Amino acid sequence: MPKPSLREAFLDAGRAEFHVNGYHGTGVAAIAQRAGGPKGSFYNHFASKEELAVAVIAGYADSRRMEMLDESRITPLARIRAHFEYLKADLARHDYKRGCMFGNFAAEVASTNDTLKLVIDEALDYWGEHLAGALEDARARGDIAASVDPLSTARLLVDAWEGAAMRAKAVGDSSPIDNFISVVFDRILVP
Amino acid sequence: MPKPSLREAFLDAGRAEFHVNGYHGTGVAAIAQRAGGPKGSFYNHFASKEELAVAVIAGYADSRRMEMLDESRITPLARIRAHFEYLKADLARHDYKRGCMFGNFAAEVASTNDTLKLVIDEALDYWGEHLAGALEDARARGDIAASVDPLSTARLLVDAWEGAAMRAKAVGDSSPIDNFISVVFDRILVP
Repeated sequence: MPKPSLREAFLDAGRAEFHVNGYHGTGVAAIAQRAGGPKGSFYNHFASKEELAVAVIAGYADSRRMEMLDESRITPLARIRAHFEYLKADLARHDYKRGCMFGNFAAEVASTNDTLKLVIDEALDYWGEHLAGALEDARARGDIAASVDPLSTARLLVDAWEGAAMRAKAVGDSSPIDNFISVVFDRILVP
Repeated sequence: MPKPSLREAFLDAGRAEFHVNGYHGTGVAAIAQRAGGPKGSFYNHFASKEELAVAVIAGYADSRRMEMLDESRITPLARIRAHFEYLKADLARHDYKRGCMFGNFAAEVASTNDTLKLVIDEALDYWGEHLAGALEDARARGDIAASVDPLSTARLLVDAWEGAAMRAKAVGDSSPIDNFISVVFDRILVP
């Protein structure tokens, strides 16, 4: 029976390696080395690098705290803002150099790997749906214009966030993310 | 003296290979093979794969037809829409599988290669500035709300386009791009 702690170590190592070096730039040997486990034992836990990537993306999706968007004790716009500020703090922890893992995988492998494409699609859809729910609540309260369509606007915001996270990597600072937050909350999500 | 046609062949081959396989996934040998030239002759034209990538990104930027955004004989919103429809047609030519080369390079190498980072930053800034100019014209005519800030909105639209192009790769169809066009022109860029 494989030790659970080693599985966790491979997951943590995979997350860090994929985030910095990408999917193709990361080998099982590098993951095993970072995890401090023998390469052979990797395959006791994961059938392949791809299977590890699926688990890493699922863990990353959990860490996005999408449930913040459903928290009905807080006004809808306040929880949407808190959600994006939380994601910003996560990008800031790595000086904006890592970007968002969803976007990195989408850009690098989604068009060539059907398994990872599906996982990324589902994660971005799930995010868009929860964000749309909060926008729906904001519209019902009159906090945003009645003309805002929740789902299509949510999808645009997810895409804009991903583009901003990617550009933050390219410029190496928070300016694209700050611009996103200011335009979205001061210009788009207004009554 | 190297033949100019072979330089062009290396540029075309580099553009296609980078777009499909990424920067790290593309070797000089594959570029030379696609170009139909010997690998050794590559270095008569480019000092390195990186130098070729700089030239490929510059050529790609030229092909974005940013000058469409400055065309004063057409109303500002009509030229902004024509510009994005032109970019959409370019993505559609490859069934949305290639994405935008700016975004692909930003995601893959901008945080680890300072030379390519600078070229991508400049291209996205140039794009944002031309788009801001058209938004400024639209605001002066009263075609969009006076509260729209041209430069910050232009940057958000560039990021949203890049995110949508990336998600179009992930879902394998035009829906993120269609969503961008509909939300931007029906909801954001309105009087």
